[in-house]
Amino acid sequence: MKPSGIVTLLTDFGLDDAYVGAMKGAILSVHAKAAVVDITHGVRPFAVLQGAFLLDSAWRSFPLGTVHVAVVDPGVGTDRRAIAFKAADHYFVGPDNGLFTFLNDPISETVELATPPEAAPTFHGRDVFAPVAARLAAGTALAGLGRPHRAEPLRLPDAWASKVGEAWRAQALHCDHFGNVISNLPIRALARIKQANGMRVRTVETYEDAPPNELVALVGSSGRIEFALREGSAAARLHVAPGDTLLVT
Amino acid sequence: MKPSGIVTLLTDFGLDDAYVGAMKGAILSVHAKAAVVDITHGVRPFAVLQGAFLLDSAWRSFPLGTVHVAVVDPGVGTDRRAIAFKAADHYFVGPDNGLFTFLNDPISETVELATPPEAAPTFHGRDVFAPVAARLAAGTALAGLGRPHRAEPLRLPDAWASKVGEAWRAQALHCDHFGNVISNLPIRALARIKQANGMRVRTVETYEDAPPNELVALVGSSGRIEFALREGSAAARLHVAPGDTLLVT
Amino acid sequence: MKPSGIVTLLTDFGLDDAYVGAMKGAILSVHAKAAVVDITHGVRPFAVLQGAFLLDSAWRSFPLGTVHVAVVDPGVGTDRRAIAFKAADHYFVGPDNGLFTFLNDPISETVELATPPEAAPTFHGRDVFAPVAARLAAGTALAGLGRPHRAEPLRLPDAWASKVGEAWRAQALHCDHFGNVISNLPIRALARIKQANGMRVRTVETYEDAPPNELVALVGSSGRIEFALREGSAAARLHVAPGDTLLVT
Repeated sequence: MKPSGIVTLLTDFGLDDAYVGAMKGAILSVHAKAAVVDITHGVRPFAVLQGAFLLDSAWRSFPLGTVHVAVVDPGVGTDRRAIAFKAADHYFVGPDNGLFTFLNDPISETVELATPPEAAPTFHGRDVFAPVAARLAAGTALAGLGRPHRAEPLRLPDAWASKVGEAWRAQALHCDHFGNVISNLPIRALARIKQANGMRVRTVETYEDAPPNELVALVGSSGRIEFALREGSAAARLHVAPGDTLLVT
Repeated sequence: MKPSGIVTLLTDFGLDDAYVGAMKGAILSVHAKAAVVDITHGVRPFAVLQGAFLLDSAWRSFPLGTVHVAVVDPGVGTDRRAIAFKAADHYFVGPDNGLFTFLNDPISETVELATPPEAAPTFHGRDVFAPVAARLAAGTALAGLGRPHRAEPLRLPDAWASKVGEAWRAQALHCDHFGNVISNLPIRALARIKQANGMRVRTVETYEDAPPNELVALVGSSGRIEFALREGSAAARLHVAPGDTLLVT
Repeated sequence: MKPSGIVTLLTDFGLDDAYVGAMKGAILSVHAKAAVVDITHGVRPFAVLQGAFLLDSAWRSFPLGTVHVAVVDPGVGTDRRAIAFKAADHYFVGPDNGLFTFLNDPISETVELATPPEAAPTFHGRDVFAPVAARLAAGTALAGLGRPHRAEPLRLPDAWASKVGEAWRAQALHCDHFGNVISNLPIRALARIKQANGMRVRTVETYEDAPPNELVALVGSSGRIEFALREGSAAARLHVAPGDTLLVT
């Protein structure tokens, strides 16, 4: 597979520090012609499952051969590994902490990257993950970047909502800029949703079908069940933030 | 006209979701060599006139042949059209909802883009506007991207302040990072400004002429009448946010 | 030295206005192939020393021949000069107001840039600094961009903490996204730190050595003494923001 030359970045570093800039510098120092594209740096600090959702909702929009770097709460260098692998003709680089939980495509050529024993997360971004991503984008094979690693990437056990009797114990994976609450409910749950955290919810087909000021559930642009409030914030109405529990009946 | 290969983006999507990243991926999937540049994604959700102002204050800084994509509250696919056109040797792509209100240059070659009947705004960004922008940046002619559309883009009726007796009913188009309030007053109003929302205002020539802690009006870097407070926030002093009314006497 | 073609930007303009986009347009209008990379635009308005720290922590990650533009509170055109120079085979462009305080490498080929007598800071970004940076990135020599300037760039007197008896009067240069407080204490002060602003502090070697809920001091990824709170915010615990005083004993 020919690399696209594109490297995407997704982190919990925010944009008010120099950490993201330093990662970009490290990439360009290895591969000056790389096109570096931000997915987002607005993941809540340490919110691995939110990061996994955001990565999942963006990477398929990029050309084949793109390298996706995800760094949220890496803590690599001890028990936790730094990995790189191939899936669906894209490359992925990051800590093996659940960030790749939603990746359903067959995974191949996984390697474990060398990491210093202890260092700050932001150091890992610049000095471990960025150079590897740059070398992948420049055409280096995965096998040349680390030692073979046979296990599948870690999948977080709470990635999907679970049934508790007739109810669902779900989670707000993400609350978007428009106040939509993206859940980890399976699509098949949609037809039976009546309440979320004790509030009445109507199921609709599109945002336009939502009556003003009424909480609705729908399959949104994320391809997941979202709670939405037309021209308002479902996140504020439900009092939830990413990672919070949603009890859905 | 030769395309510059640059695509600018202006949306109300914010930077904490994956929507902007997905738009960039969609552009690069069509035209891998495009240079994608953010103008801003910080337009208040659904604030079309604020988006129109911000687009107006940036697009002229780019080279001829640049493609400018603006997506704020698109709602296209029903009555509202998705359009693309040429003006002043730049290209513009977005919903026909008033985002191009401040564009005074002659407009040509307008086409209406095909859109699915209903979808989320963020879907339109990625799946309608981004691919069209990429094809323009790659050299496809406008005529090949949609069907001819004869009408001028919609101009919002409240784009400019209106006279009410001796007073002006104006609007805060935008409040910038430094607390400056950019108004939609015509430049000729400057000489007579005495008060804004009941507060005394002094007119000055430059920011440096403003005495500390005194509200001033001037023609700012935006080329519009701004209210400013030296080393303070005129927006906080006037209690206004983008879209709010300014009564100016 | 061959330019890398990369231009980095660091400003206090924020991302919610069109100012940064306009700067990028101005750069690409002069040098269409420039790769423009944001370090950060989240410097607090007018916080020159914070900007100096953030620039210092990022520029070395970029390839030789990169042009770094820093614009915080420029106010150039009167007493204050706009300058460009070379150091460590990188180029630097910005106001001579202390933004280059932490640059220890030998400085050469400094030129003073022509500036209009009075204008808004954001105007300087787009119309003074951006075109000069673009011409440097395109290979123009410094001597062709301004008139020779013999003085060293201004160094801010409060760049480093000072001793007051047995105590240190230090400053929070920056508070990062994870709540770490980066100080301007010299590294040699670390071993003796007992308190900061009256609160007990333990010195540790790495973030992982910090006991939960206990304020620690360490040499962080910035290469400076940072105050940190594991999975919490040291900035909130110490009640400090960038620029605030830290009394350290």
